[in-house]
Amino acid sequence: MRDVSVVGIGQTPVKEHWDKSLRELAAEAILGALRDAHVDHADALYIGNMLSGQLIGQENLGALIADEIGLRGIEAMKIEAACSSGGAAIRAGYLAVASGQFDVVIVAGAEKLTEASNCYTTAALAMAADSDYEAIHGISFVALNALLMKRYMYEYDLVPEDFAAFTMNAHANAVNNPYAMFRSAITVEQYKNAREIADPISVMDSAPICDGAAALVLMPTEHLNGQRARAVKIAASAVATDSLALHARRDPLWLSAVELSSRKAYAQAGITPQDVDLFEVHDAFSIMSVMSLEAAGFAERGRGAYLAREGEIGIHGRVPISTMGGLKARGHPVGATGVYQAVEAVMQLRGEAGKNQVPDAQIAMIQSLGGVAANAVTHILVN
Amino acid sequence: MRDVSVVGIGQTPVKEHWDKSLRELAAEAILGALRDAHVDHADALYIGNMLSGQLIGQENLGALIADEIGLRGIEAMKIEAACSSGGAAIRAGYLAVASGQFDVVIVAGAEKLTEASNCYTTAALAMAADSDYEAIHGISFVALNALLMKRYMYEYDLVPEDFAAFTMNAHANAVNNPYAMFRSAITVEQYKNAREIADPISVMDSAPICDGAAALVLMPTEHLNGQRARAVKIAASAVATDSLALHARRDPLWLSAVELSSRKAYAQAGITPQDVDLFEVHDAFSIMSVMSLEAAGFAERGRGAYLAREGEIGIHGRVPISTMGGLKARGHPVGATGVYQAVEAVMQLRGEAGKNQVPDAQIAMIQSLGGVAANAVTHILVN
Repeated sequence: MRDVSVVGIGQTPVKEHWDKSLRELAAEAILGALRDAHVDHADALYIGNMLSGQLIGQENLGALIADEIGLRGIEAMKIEAACSSGGAAIRAGYLAVASGQFDVVIVAGAEKLTEASNCYTTAALAMAADSDYEAIHGISFVALNALLMKRYMYEYDLVPEDFAAFTMNAHANAVNNPYAMFRSAITVEQYKNAREIADPISVMDSAPICDGAAALVLMPTEHLNGQRARAVKIAASAVATDSLALHARRDPLWLSAVELSSRKAYAQAGITPQDVDLFEVHDAFSIMSVMSLEAAGFAERGRGAYLAREGEIGIHGRVPISTMGGLKARGHPVGATGVYQAVEAVMQLRGEAGKNQVPDAQIAMIQSLGGVAANAVTHILVN
Repeated sequence: MRDVSVVGIGQTPVKEHWDKSLRELAAEAILGALRDAHVDHADALYIGNMLSGQLIGQENLGALIADEIGLRGIEAMKIEAACSSGGAAIRAGYLAVASGQFDVVIVAGAEKLTEASNCYTTAALAMAADSDYEAIHGISFVALNALLMKRYMYEYDLVPEDFAAFTMNAHANAVNNPYAMFRSAITVEQYKNAREIADPISVMDSAPICDGAAALVLMPTEHLNGQRARAVKIAASAVATDSLALHARRDPLWLSAVELSSRKAYAQAGITPQDVDLFEVHDAFSIMSVMSLEAAGFAERGRGAYLAREGEIGIHGRVPISTMGGLKARGHPVGATGVYQAVEAVMQLRGEAGKNQVPDAQIAMIQSLGGVAANAVTHILVN
């Protein structure tokens, strides 16, 4: 397989885009990525999206967006893996270039969640869980994560405030990211006083409902010319799965898909967790950050929350996470999120992350989870 | 890139499966394909589906089905390209094996359209068209095809009966296919007297709403051992797109995505249309068969219908199409259809098509269309 590099990145601000359609958001991000890559054509488009059918009545996004960006005719398709659709689209684009089939591939992620009522969107998001055995009983996706958080707190003797440092880190980092949804730092008091949405999860433990699009241009590393200086190599690409339903897992407090996909990625890149300079974690809920850090090998089991409490997840910490605000504060436009993570990791590796720059960042890991980590898509990017 | 072969096939009957869920249908087809291939493991699963979110409230099918078939943990994702989702899933699986990444890959297609009311399903199917510029005005997907058929008839001076031979051929071939939905031959009189659903399209010009699942196992050709005798090689894999909206096309009576993806496939396989022994065409509507035969190079422009009238599309004709009943009579479980086409083509190339066997079939072409040919996915299979 050929080595693959990211040669262009693009993104829209993450917010409630009431004035722009999904196709406009996707086009804005993609045209930005093409400009950034200094190319005006591509062979194929793989677009990550979860809920365009349910929420805006549009499927067939591949052909739609290819046409919208002026590339009518090229290969295009939509990739869906719930909240990890963006990560899965990167995977599809990676294979298309690595195989030797294509020399210029666009990967995009786009999602518009605010066109429908929040209540309807909440029901739609539950389709990431098991419809027949979970959602049908009325449990929301937040509530599934709340079950996990509650059990985790019981098992390891924690209180909600032990999770506050994740939210404070994400919000602090979002302040300097012009594309982020929540550009305001928060205090422990604000975290503690936040409105609860599913005991013990408050709005401060949960990523927001929002819209956005992000895009990458991929090329074979061996073909780079003008793009070489700012190119970032994809050193690993790995996907693993788990049961959708929580009750079907032998050990619900261990994210086995995260462990499996992280291990595959470390092996492919030839590194260990200690080599990772920053980790864009899937912090849709605080509990997911904690359990991901453990399953991905950054903390001992039961010790994920301590990593944050001890200040190790900040820009200058041992394992910087959510460096541009993460899902919590940059925002989580579901199928776009995995691609936002890649865009931000590329900015870090290029040294273009401004005030949030992780010093001398050489190796970045990004991980996109679908459902309650029923899918885990891991990519490792290197300078 | 490595050569890729189909080493196992599986399918469920196509019908209204009121007693089986989507996951059960998918598992039945996939386990059949694994048995047929004499393998009990796979590295990845790519599943084509269009409307599981809209019609059964379930996304994240990749992880769900991987778990259902006992392969929890493997890479899995859903591929969506409207009615060509099945073809696009084959494309994704093909690239995963051709790249060298995986040695055993499952491709599946599954769709359950009859869980919702027909009226709701009709609205959902319109999401294959342009929601903002077509579906929002109330036009159904059938009606879009009816506009094309009407214009085509005007342009080339045809009457509806000129299309009858397509339907008669499909139904005649379905009689001998135990997996087909409509196993009854029809007469010209029945065609002429059929209930109209969107002038000039009658139920006899339109594929039915139904459920089904089909699956393939793919392996690198160079790795075959026990599978070699019954393996079929994928000699070409190509995707092309067009605008979703009909009004945006310079020439609505020419399916440019079909032309483009067919040409790419012929070039990759090193053949011409004359070399094709059978063509599994996307006959969701009679007019699509006619226009596909033209754009894929089997008939001159305006002459597609004559091919059928002159008896050239039968099992013993010059261009056998819909050899096991096609979308019209085998049935069209949307996201599964492209994989059904592959299963049937493999049966033909193995010489296992029974009474419908195309004599000495060596080269089969299958083509899966999404929207009104906004996506065209073409594969060429050879013995």
